[in-house]
Amino acid sequence: MKLIIINGPNLNLVGIREKDIYGEKNFTAYLAELLMRFEHTDLEYFQSNIEGEIINKLQQAGFDCDGIILNAGGYSHTSVAIADAVRAIPVPVVEVHISNIFGREDYRKVSLLAPACKGIISGFGLDSYRLAIESFLK
Amino acid sequence: MKLIIINGPNLNLVGIREKDIYGEKNFTAYLAELLMRFEHTDLEYFQSNIEGEIINKLQQAGFDCDGIILNAGGYSHTSVAIADAVRAIPVPVVEVHISNIFGREDYRKVSLLAPACKGIISGFGLDSYRLAIESFLK
Amino acid sequence: MKLIIINGPNLNLVGIREKDIYGEKNFTAYLAELLMRFEHTDLEYFQSNIEGEIINKLQQAGFDCDGIILNAGGYSHTSVAIADAVRAIPVPVVEVHISNIFGREDYRKVSLLAPACKGIISGFGLDSYRLAIESFLK
Amino acid sequence: MKLIIINGPNLNLVGIREKDIYGEKNFTAYLAELLMRFEHTDLEYFQSNIEGEIINKLQQAGFDCDGIILNAGGYSHTSVAIADAVRAIPVPVVEVHISNIFGREDYRKVSLLAPACKGIISGFGLDSYRLAIESFLK
Amino acid sequence: MKLIIINGPNLNLVGIREKDIYGEKNFTAYLAELLMRFEHTDLEYFQSNIEGEIINKLQQAGFDCDGIILNAGGYSHTSVAIADAVRAIPVPVVEVHISNIFGREDYRKVSLLAPACKGIISGFGLDSYRLAIESFLK
Amino acid sequence: MKLIIINGPNLNLVGIREKDIYGEKNFTAYLAELLMRFEHTDLEYFQSNIEGEIINKLQQAGFDCDGIILNAGGYSHTSVAIADAVRAIPVPVVEVHISNIFGREDYRKVSLLAPACKGIISGFGLDSYRLAIESFLK
Amino acid sequence: MKLIIINGPNLNLVGIREKDIYGEKNFTAYLAELLMRFEHTDLEYFQSNIEGEIINKLQQAGFDCDGIILNAGGYSHTSVAIADAVRAIPVPVVEVHISNIFGREDYRKVSLLAPACKGIISGFGLDSYRLAIESFLK
Amino acid sequence: MKLIIINGPNLNLVGIREKDIYGEKNFTAYLAELLMRFEHTDLEYFQSNIEGEIINKLQQAGFDCDGIILNAGGYSHTSVAIADAVRAIPVPVVEVHISNIFGREDYRKVSLLAPACKGIISGFGLDSYRLAIESFLK
Amino acid sequence: MKLIIINGPNLNLVGIREKDIYGEKNFTAYLAELLMRFEHTDLEYFQSNIEGEIINKLQQAGFDCDGIILNAGGYSHTSVAIADAVRAIPVPVVEVHISNIFGREDYRKVSLLAPACKGIISGFGLDSYRLAIESFLK
Amino acid sequence: MKLIIINGPNLNLVGIREKDIYGEKNFTAYLAELLMRFEHTDLEYFQSNIEGEIINKLQQAGFDCDGIILNAGGYSHTSVAIADAVRAIPVPVVEVHISNIFGREDYRKVSLLAPACKGIISGFGLDSYRLAIESFLK
Amino acid sequence: MKLIIINGPNLNLVGIREKDIYGEKNFTAYLAELLMRFEHTDLEYFQSNIEGEIINKLQQAGFDCDGIILNAGGYSHTSVAIADAVRAIPVPVVEVHISNIFGREDYRKVSLLAPACKGIISGFGLDSYRLAIESFLK
Amino acid sequence: MKLIIINGPNLNLVGIREKDIYGEKNFTAYLAELLMRFEHTDLEYFQSNIEGEIINKLQQAGFDCDGIILNAGGYSHTSVAIADAVRAIPVPVVEVHISNIFGREDYRKVSLLAPACKGIISGFGLDSYRLAIESFLK
Repeated sequence: MKLIIINGPNLNLVGIREKDIYGEKNFTAYLAELLMRFEHTDLEYFQSNIEGEIINKLQQAGFDCDGIILNAGGYSHTSVAIADAVRAIPVPVVEVHISNIFGREDYRKVSLLAPACKGIISGFGLDSYRLAIESFLK
Repeated sequence: MKLIIINGPNLNLVGIREKDIYGEKNFTAYLAELLMRFEHTDLEYFQSNIEGEIINKLQQAGFDCDGIILNAGGYSHTSVAIADAVRAIPVPVVEVHISNIFGREDYRKVSLLAPACKGIISGFGLDSYRLAIESFLK
Repeated sequence: MKLIIINGPNLNLVGIREKDIYGEKNFTAYLAELLMRFEHTDLEYFQSNIEGEIINKLQQAGFDCDGIILNAGGYSHTSVAIADAVRAIPVPVVEVHISNIFGREDYRKVSLLAPACKGIISGFGLDSYRLAIESFLK
Repeated sequence: MKLIIINGPNLNLVGIREKDIYGEKNFTAYLAELLMRFEHTDLEYFQSNIEGEIINKLQQAGFDCDGIILNAGGYSHTSVAIADAVRAIPVPVVEVHISNIFGREDYRKVSLLAPACKGIISGFGLDSYRLAIESFLK
Repeated sequence: MKLIIINGPNLNLVGIREKDIYGEKNFTAYLAELLMRFEHTDLEYFQSNIEGEIINKLQQAGFDCDGIILNAGGYSHTSVAIADAVRAIPVPVVEVHISNIFGREDYRKVSLLAPACKGIISGFGLDSYRLAIESFLK
Repeated sequence: MKLIIINGPNLNLVGIREKDIYGEKNFTAYLAELLMRFEHTDLEYFQSNIEGEIINKLQQAGFDCDGIILNAGGYSHTSVAIADAVRAIPVPVVEVHISNIFGREDYRKVSLLAPACKGIISGFGLDSYRLAIESFLK
Repeated sequence: MKLIIINGPNLNLVGIREKDIYGEKNFTAYLAELLMRFEHTDLEYFQSNIEGEIINKLQQAGFDCDGIILNAGGYSHTSVAIADAVRAIPVPVVEVHISNIFGREDYRKVSLLAPACKGIISGFGLDSYRLAIESFLK
Repeated sequence: MKLIIINGPNLNLVGIREKDIYGEKNFTAYLAELLMRFEHTDLEYFQSNIEGEIINKLQQAGFDCDGIILNAGGYSHTSVAIADAVRAIPVPVVEVHISNIFGREDYRKVSLLAPACKGIISGFGLDSYRLAIESFLK
Repeated sequence: MKLIIINGPNLNLVGIREKDIYGEKNFTAYLAELLMRFEHTDLEYFQSNIEGEIINKLQQAGFDCDGIILNAGGYSHTSVAIADAVRAIPVPVVEVHISNIFGREDYRKVSLLAPACKGIISGFGLDSYRLAIESFLK
Repeated sequence: MKLIIINGPNLNLVGIREKDIYGEKNFTAYLAELLMRFEHTDLEYFQSNIEGEIINKLQQAGFDCDGIILNAGGYSHTSVAIADAVRAIPVPVVEVHISNIFGREDYRKVSLLAPACKGIISGFGLDSYRLAIESFLK
Repeated sequence: MKLIIINGPNLNLVGIREKDIYGEKNFTAYLAELLMRFEHTDLEYFQSNIEGEIINKLQQAGFDCDGIILNAGGYSHTSVAIADAVRAIPVPVVEVHISNIFGREDYRKVSLLAPACKGIISGFGLDSYRLAIESFLK
Repeated sequence: MKLIIINGPNLNLVGIREKDIYGEKNFTAYLAELLMRFEHTDLEYFQSNIEGEIINKLQQAGFDCDGIILNAGGYSHTSVAIADAVRAIPVPVVEVHISNIFGREDYRKVSLLAPACKGIISGFGLDSYRLAIESFLK
């Protein structure tokens, strides 16, 4: 099974940025833990701050992987184009958020991506990514 | 570890009701599978169609369990009182939905409970419950 | 043909409560008239002020009767859960209101149940129930 | 007892137009059935696609009949002027719809006429007209 | 000076219809009074319940009179097409209402015509027409 | 007959301020013309930029005059308190605007005072005041 | 004089739940104080988490007491049915809240019950109940 | 190939009315050019200011032509009834506007007809009609 | 204990103005009753129709009294500045209304002051002031 | 005459993606047809998934071509920045959509680009591009 | 160069009031610093809690100074009348706020004055006034 | 002191584009003036049309400079992701606009960035940048 985690803008600063919301662990360290835990899964990782590059990666992975785990950060609330990319590909996409977006500012309570995704997992800290992987493994 | 699944209105009809949305398996059968899978976890189950009985159960379990998995069905979108109960108890509550509520009617896209819960898992079919249990086990 | 009338909150006070809106006849007296008029129809009656008990009754009658006549009173405007119950059962449900809800307060102009029901009859006083029965008899 | 059915725009195409919504029977055939069924009632029929002609007819019938059955079609959702005509006449008007307008597009869920009418019957197919006649006969 | 009064739907029923709002005097009697009072003014009168005929008349009078006094009744609140006609003609149009439309239902508080007219006079009973004529005479 | 014109904020600058909207004549000059024209009417004048002083004047004139002509300027769109004062006094108040407020910015299209006044005259330049006086003289 | 305090959902947890909002004293202790203070008043108490049971109690007390003090908790913001019950009974109902609901989340700023009640007292901690009793004693 | 152009209210004034928006050429002259350019196409023309007559024409042409080019003018933004007529007929309808309606007033940015039409062409001056014809010729 | 009652616009007309809403007793007479009843309390009184003078008084009393009872009348629904003054002073302010503002026009249902005040008492007629005083005495 | 087609995100997947909406032909094949058909026109092509690169291209082509045909895909509904770029350049831009965006989801019914463009052509499948080219050729 | 600072309601309490938002320095002390720093500028100061007095001062300074620095406090969000005064005078007005109004409550995010002013400077503490002066000096 | 100016989309066209709004001077020329004026400040400059590259630059400068001056152009009104980047970095960011965005189209009146920035300076032409630099120098 081949999975990819696609992280959007500012997620490269997790562990540095607003620690009260996003926690203290940085993503690279966390990724290492995930790779160890799911050693039998082919797990790729991609991060970009550029909306269109996330679309490029979705278009490529969307015909190549078995599942996509997508945390589009701030673009989750504004990008029709990423949602269109999710709809345009056959591979199922699971939306993931570190914080509970429904308990934050109003504009963060609406994800334009969610209706296009298979499901959403939000609020479990970095552990949201682990649960998303579990959702593909069953 | 002691967990409880609390199911709200009409979830007793899963497997019978609108199968294209909620799937064909009934909840009792699924619960048996869960109990087998998580044999080392103390897993209780409660269902009611009455909003106030869900509150009663939350108030009781909320000082007694280690975690609550809550699918309040239609009440998720209308009940300030259940959200208040979640806020009133110390035990963490994970909100769960079988279907992807964000891909359905507009009034289903807002959960009044979500801001009060620890996190939300929505759209994985009955498997949403399994993932919620995993979120407590780590 | 087996029909059931399900009345929601405060409809037990018809004839006592706000007579300018709901009229002077009480429901028991009216029911007796209906039973006489439709003597060849098996006509049951149920009333509750509790939302969840209305759901319980809908779930039971919904696999047992030929038609349901539902006046959910104030829950008509707030209950996603009752609407879900109507959608979950195979028996057709006709929504009924004594007053013309579209000529009253704004929040009464929207029925959450109506989209889930077969049809709606509103504004004919208690006679709305008679017309609903006629809709099943053809 | 003298009643009139007033049909608005596009209702002359019933049986031809969007049959999945409005059914397969055309209105002339249905009218013949009604006339037969209610042979002791003086039942007139009028149809126009022109908003102002519907007003003309309401103004005339409104001082002449015992009851009016009005399906203003698309004008139901946009015409303050027809609603004013209903308010301007002493004869009671019953609003009728073939489809369940509350289960369709959002703009069809609001009838500007309903607050001015005695009552509304919606969603019973052509049978809505029969029920409206029954409402006058008691 | 040549002026025309254009009355829209249901204004032919003034004096008959909803007397508490529109008063007891009928328009023909009132018009006679106006003609007597403004004997040196060429004063025409037109009434129609049909939106398009009001447009026809506006298009014709709009190149022929010195001023138009328009009470479009219910169409005031819904007709972009009449507003467009007012904008399309060079003759100034004064909007007139018998009742104070700003003290009534919410949908009557917005006139689509007002932004296209020179001015508005509302709430003086039939006397609103007299004031509108005065506005042209100075 | 005793009338008073009450002008609100910035109307002391008419003739100086935004001449394309409010015209070139200043109010003092115009008032002199009005006094001459209506020599048999007792016509008072009051202007203030202070909301509460307008209320003070309304409360005083409201038990003393036969009619009040009120142009509350910018307060027309924001002052519940002035509207309450109009409602609190027995003398009829006519609302007046120099420009056509319905053809300007959105926030100017709603007058909080209009529902409390007898009628409104808007868009005739300074001539709006003359028409308001005529409305009391009949 | 016979009064009843009716408490809605989660108010049985006062003193335990969110102490920064609702204070540290539990309701039973507070009730004892009230009984002592108003020893000449017949003061009953009822609490339920179930919306319909609150309606049941209102319907019963509403023909039997001299006054009702109602804190419907979270149902205050969502229950048309409880508001209908208040309207259906002849006894005056005073709405009470421990916290200042107008200084909290937006959805708590609207009470559906308030328009049906005689008055509202909100924000004085448990002391709100004392003031409500005083309102009946004069 | 048989096509018809149906023009709505005020389009008979093109070339006379608001030339800065709609241009200087009148429609009759433009139609002559179109007839010459598409000499092998059977091209009919109809104009009415009356909403219902546009519906009448759509109902007739809708079972008789190969394509309809519709500019409903001001009715585009208000007429559910015309949109229903478009949905009721089998012939494809192309919506056309002379000006770019999306660059004008807010209420002109929504066409109720567009969702019922095959496509929309807006903003090319009278040339919009030529492009609509081309869309049928391919 | 030193308290002050601050009354806003039009409250000087209580007993004269709209008696069906505000009652028949004038405020001076009522104040005399209050002074007698609370003879051991130092009770000041201030009324102004001018928003800024209410602010001036709040700023002065806000560092000098033990409690402020504020009925800002129409300004309650429009004044951010008064709310800011309440927030700027250390003395607790109780908002008071004679009528039940939640049962009246929509714009009266929102008090901009309430979030800044300690609590609100609304709907008890002039008795609301008495209850507000009681809230400080305990 | 020099024209350029600028395609935005996911339009590189036309023919692969959601074929029921966007059709079965891929864009490269279609472009070849266009080039053949308009052999005397200098027709360039550009596609990018990156919003800023579309702006870069508009800024360059906007001073160099005779016309631009822009389908910004999902960015049409969210990009103020692309609309600003269209406004910043002297060359006319025609907005094009394959599907009829007005007949789809609500958020697709508003194009932020349309007010800045010369015109819009939507709903003709890939043929929309051909019509846009025709609009420049006349 | 002659400048004036006009401060609105509650700004006389800066340094005393809500220090976490508005800082600890009082305005008089700060003004002394400004006068020293800009010794070659003629710098006047005015403060009032009364909306109409701010208008009076704007009307006077607006024909007399070279620039106005306006912090209208709470009136910024509610006063059409002050905005009208700014539009009525020829002198440029710069709007100033101590706190960043866009990072606070929703109703503070809209300034009715901003569209009438030359520019806005918000969020720099008392230093916002210094920057406003610099904007006139260049 | 080290500062950076970050300019967003289309700001590379200042001096060329819409000169009535943005002025005639191009940014390079203006930057030269700034560098001369603030010769003791280390002033960097960056411009990109790509949202994600602005984020990249903010992330880099945000740990390296003493202050950031950000004009995100059209992204100011749509980008949650840039606002998140501003929140993620420790360096203070001042938002700058050439035109007065509050006096333009509605969608330009809301800046998603403003709540995350220290302050905003808008409407002073290119001089807004100078003032922003002054805000850091004090």
